[in-house]
Amino acid sequence: MYPASGWALHTDKYQITMMYAHWKNGSHRQRKAFDLYFRKLPFGNGFAVFAGLERAVQYLTQLRFTAEDIRYLAEQEEKYDPAFLDLLRDFRFNGDVYAMREGSLVFPDEPLLRMEGTVMELQLVETALLNFIGYQTLVATKAARMKTIAPHDTLMEFGTRRAQEAEAAVWGARAAYLAGFHATSNMRAGEQFGIPTKGTHSHAWVQDFDSELEAFRTFAAAFPDQSVLLVDTYDTLKSGVPHAIQVGLELREKGHRLAGIRLDSGDLAYLSKEARHMLDEAGLTDTAIVASSDLDEDTILSLKSQGARIDSWGVGTKLITAYDQPALGAVYKLVAREQNGEWTPTIKISSNPDKVTTPGVKTVYRIVDQNSGKARGDLIVKQGQTIDENQPLTLFHPVHTYRIKKVKRFRAIQLLQPVIRAGNLITELPSLHELRDRHQEERSLFWEEYLRLLNPEEYPVDLSPELWETKQQLVQKIYRTIREENGE
Amino acid sequence: MYPASGWALHTDKYQITMMYAHWKNGSHRQRKAFDLYFRKLPFGNGFAVFAGLERAVQYLTQLRFTAEDIRYLAEQEEKYDPAFLDLLRDFRFNGDVYAMREGSLVFPDEPLLRMEGTVMELQLVETALLNFIGYQTLVATKAARMKTIAPHDTLMEFGTRRAQEAEAAVWGARAAYLAGFHATSNMRAGEQFGIPTKGTHSHAWVQDFDSELEAFRTFAAAFPDQSVLLVDTYDTLKSGVPHAIQVGLELREKGHRLAGIRLDSGDLAYLSKEARHMLDEAGLTDTAIVASSDLDEDTILSLKSQGARIDSWGVGTKLITAYDQPALGAVYKLVAREQNGEWTPTIKISSNPDKVTTPGVKTVYRIVDQNSGKARGDLIVKQGQTIDENQPLTLFHPVHTYRIKKVKRFRAIQLLQPVIRAGNLITELPSLHELRDRHQEERSLFWEEYLRLLNPEEYPVDLSPELWETKQQLVQKIYRTIREENGE
Repeated sequence: MYPASGWALHTDKYQITMMYAHWKNGSHRQRKAFDLYFRKLPFGNGFAVFAGLERAVQYLTQLRFTAEDIRYLAEQEEKYDPAFLDLLRDFRFNGDVYAMREGSLVFPDEPLLRMEGTVMELQLVETALLNFIGYQTLVATKAARMKTIAPHDTLMEFGTRRAQEAEAAVWGARAAYLAGFHATSNMRAGEQFGIPTKGTHSHAWVQDFDSELEAFRTFAAAFPDQSVLLVDTYDTLKSGVPHAIQVGLELREKGHRLAGIRLDSGDLAYLSKEARHMLDEAGLTDTAIVASSDLDEDTILSLKSQGARIDSWGVGTKLITAYDQPALGAVYKLVAREQNGEWTPTIKISSNPDKVTTPGVKTVYRIVDQNSGKARGDLIVKQGQTIDENQPLTLFHPVHTYRIKKVKRFRAIQLLQPVIRAGNLITELPSLHELRDRHQEERSLFWEEYLRLLNPEEYPVDLSPELWETKQQLVQKIYRTIREENGE
Repeated sequence: MYPASGWALHTDKYQITMMYAHWKNGSHRQRKAFDLYFRKLPFGNGFAVFAGLERAVQYLTQLRFTAEDIRYLAEQEEKYDPAFLDLLRDFRFNGDVYAMREGSLVFPDEPLLRMEGTVMELQLVETALLNFIGYQTLVATKAARMKTIAPHDTLMEFGTRRAQEAEAAVWGARAAYLAGFHATSNMRAGEQFGIPTKGTHSHAWVQDFDSELEAFRTFAAAFPDQSVLLVDTYDTLKSGVPHAIQVGLELREKGHRLAGIRLDSGDLAYLSKEARHMLDEAGLTDTAIVASSDLDEDTILSLKSQGARIDSWGVGTKLITAYDQPALGAVYKLVAREQNGEWTPTIKISSNPDKVTTPGVKTVYRIVDQNSGKARGDLIVKQGQTIDENQPLTLFHPVHTYRIKKVKRFRAIQLLQPVIRAGNLITELPSLHELRDRHQEERSLFWEEYLRLLNPEEYPVDLSPELWETKQQLVQKIYRTIREENGE
C-alpha cells in the first residue's frame, strides 16, 4: 500500500531542523522519552477507540531516507552539513515503543504510546505518528458512536468519495471496521485488510436506461440474489419501490430473491415505513431496506426513535471525515531525558492547567473491580511501580484532588505493552478481525454511563501520589526560576 | 508519490458492480458524458478555487488493475465471470476529459470536469475523481479565505500532524500554496512540488535543556541567521521573549540576525504587541513575529482588527482538515448518453429543486465586461454553441428566472478546456508556481463583493435559454410518466 522504503519526509521541517541542531550540539544521541496522547475526547463521547498502531509500526520499521530525500535536503536554504546528511543516509528507527492495544477504549491524558530512543529518531517520527494515530483513532471513535446506538444493525462505511484524499479512505475504512462496522465500499480496504465490501448501484445506472424498470431488471439479471436497487432516482414511492417490487416478484418466480432496496433521499423515516409496508404486502418480507443520505449517529438515533424500518445503514461523509470534529488534536510531549543513566522528568507549563504535561516515564493500569467486573478507573504510575492487588487502592482526581475513591478487590491490568524494542517488532500484532472482536468484548468492561452518546460520565484517569507530587514540584521549580530571573 | 500502476481499486464497490452489470448486458462500451461539480459553496465563501486536476490526470493516465487486484476480485461473493476479469486485466482509461484550469475561481452547478467515454471507464473513475478534486478544492478555498484577509502577510501551512492521513497532508499543502500560501512544513510537499518549506522548533527542544536560554543559544548556534525561537514553553513575556532578545543581541554582536520568535499560546493580540515593543526596545526591529495556535481566517481577522503585530501566520488543523466543513460534497452525474451517434440528455429528479441535474453535454463561458474588466457571470451552454461577442447577451437566473441582466460589450472566455483525449494527455499542465500566479491574477477579475468573507454576493451562473428549456421538458416528461404509471 505504501513503498517499502522512504517515508522519512512525511514529517514537519522543524523535526529536521531540531535533529540538525542537536547534531551540531553533539546531543543527537541522547536518550529521551515521549508520550503520545490526547487531552479532550472528540464528539462529546465518553471514550475514544485507540487505532492506528499497525500503520505506525509499519512506518517505524520501514522508515528510511531515500537518495532522493537526501538530495532534496542538500538543496535546502539551511545548508545542512554533508556529514549530517551522511548520518541520515544510514538512519534507522532503533527506539522502543510501548503501546495500548488497538481497539482499546482510551481516555484523555493517558499515554497511548510511550516512545523511548535517541532525540533524533524520536523527533523525526512525531509528525507521522500523530498523523496516523490521530486520524484512525478519530474515525474509530466516531464509528463506535454509531455502533452504540445501532448495535444490532448492519453498518457500512460508504465515504471514499468524500474522504480527505486516498489514504484517508483506506485507513478510515479500517478504523470503522475495527470499531464494529460490518463492511466498506472501499475496494482497497477490502483487498488490503479483508474487510467485507458492499455496493449497490448509482442514480446514473437508472438514468442510463429508457425506463427505471428496465434499469432494475438489467441489474437484477447480473446479480439475481445480491441486488440492492436504488429507488429514488425519479420518485421513491410512486416509481422506485413499485418497480423494485415488480423485479423482486420476477426474481422470486425464477427462484431468486431481491436482496434489498436503498433509500438515498427524502424523509427516511416515512419512506422506510411505507416501503416496508409495500414490500411486505407484496410478500417480499425478506427484502432488506438500506438507507444512505448524510447519516451520522444523530440522524440514525432520530430515525430509530421514529420507528424507521431500516435494516442497514450506509454511512459516508460524516464518518470518514469525522465531520463534527475532523481532528483529534493528539499531542506528543517530551516527558523525560536520560542523564547519567537515569531518567530526569521534564515538564511543559501552560497558563491553561489542562495543558501542563505530566512528567516522567510512566505506565497505565486499568483498575477492574472483581465484584462487578467493571472498570473503576485508569491509574497512571511511574514506570516500574507495581500495584499490589491485595491492598486497598486509593484513587484521586489529578485536578480536583478532593475526589477520592477506594477500591478493594480489583485486578490491575497494564495497558501499555512493549511492541518495538531497539527498532524491531517484538510481538505479533493481532489481526484486524481479532482486534474488532476484542474491542466489542472490552466495551462490556465499562458501565453504560461511560458509553452513552450524550453527556457521558467522566471516566477517572488518575495519577499515583508519587507522580502527582513530582508534577507539583516541577511546576513550582519553574515558576521559582522565572520569578528569580524577573527579580520578583 | 504513488505507484505507477494500480489504483483501479481506489473506488467504491458499486462502480465494479455497475461495470459488471453493463458488461453482462452488453452495454459496457456505450459512450456517456458525466459532469463533476458541486452544489453549494463551502464556508459561506463567495467562490471556490478549483484544484486537484494534476492529481486526477496522473491517476487517469496511470490507471491499471494489477494482477493482485484481479485475484482479489475473483474471490468476491459476486462471482464475476472470468471473461469480465480478463477485460479488466487490459483495462486502460481511454476517455476524454475537459476541465477548468486549476486555480480558477469556480461556482456551484457549473461543470469543473466533463468526462466523455465508455460507461465502464467513466463509472470506475467517479470515486477517485471526487476524492481527489473534492479535497484539494476544499483546502484551496479555505486557504483563499485566509489570503483574502491577510493578502500581504506570510502564510504558512503547518497542518501535517492533524491531517487526515499522509496524502491529505501533501495534497493539502499543494492546494494551500496554489491559493496563495507561501510555504509548508510538509517535507514531502516540498520535495515533490518545490513548495518552500519552513519550520522552527518545538517545546520539546526547550524542555530538553537545563534552561530556556541555553536551549535558545544552542538552536541559534546551528542556524545563526534563520532561527525562529518558540517563546511560550514556560512564560512568554517573563521568560521566552527576554531570553530570545538576549540571544538576538548575542547573534547581532557576531554579525548575525535573529530571524523571528514564535507565539503559540495565550492572547496573541496582547502578547504580539508586547513582544514587538520589547524587541524594538532592544533594537531587534527586524526580528519577525510568527503566530501559530489553532488559527483560521476568523481568528486572523480578529487579531488583525485588534492591532496584533504578527508578520507571519502558521496555520494548521483548521486549514488542512477544512475544519468547519471538512467535505465539499462534489457530485458526478450522468448528463448524456450516446444513441445512434447523437447525445441524448439525461436528468436526475429530486424533491429538492437544487438537486435536479442539468441535462446534456455542456460547456461554460465566463462573461467579462469590456468596460470594467470584471466578470459579470458564467453562462452554461450546450457544447458547440458559440457566443457572438458582437451581440448583446441576456443572462437570467436558472431558478429565479425573473432575474435578468443584459451585457453589451463583453468577452466570452471558454472555461472548460480539453485535457485528455482518448486517454492521452494532450496539453502541458502548467507548473504549480504558474497556476499560483494565475490564480492571484484571476482574483482581480472579480468585484470585491464576490470575494469578501462574510455574506458575499451570489455570483451569477446562468443557463442558456436552450439548456433551460431542455431541462424543463425532461422534468415534465418524467413526471408525466410517473403520473401515467400511477393512473393519475
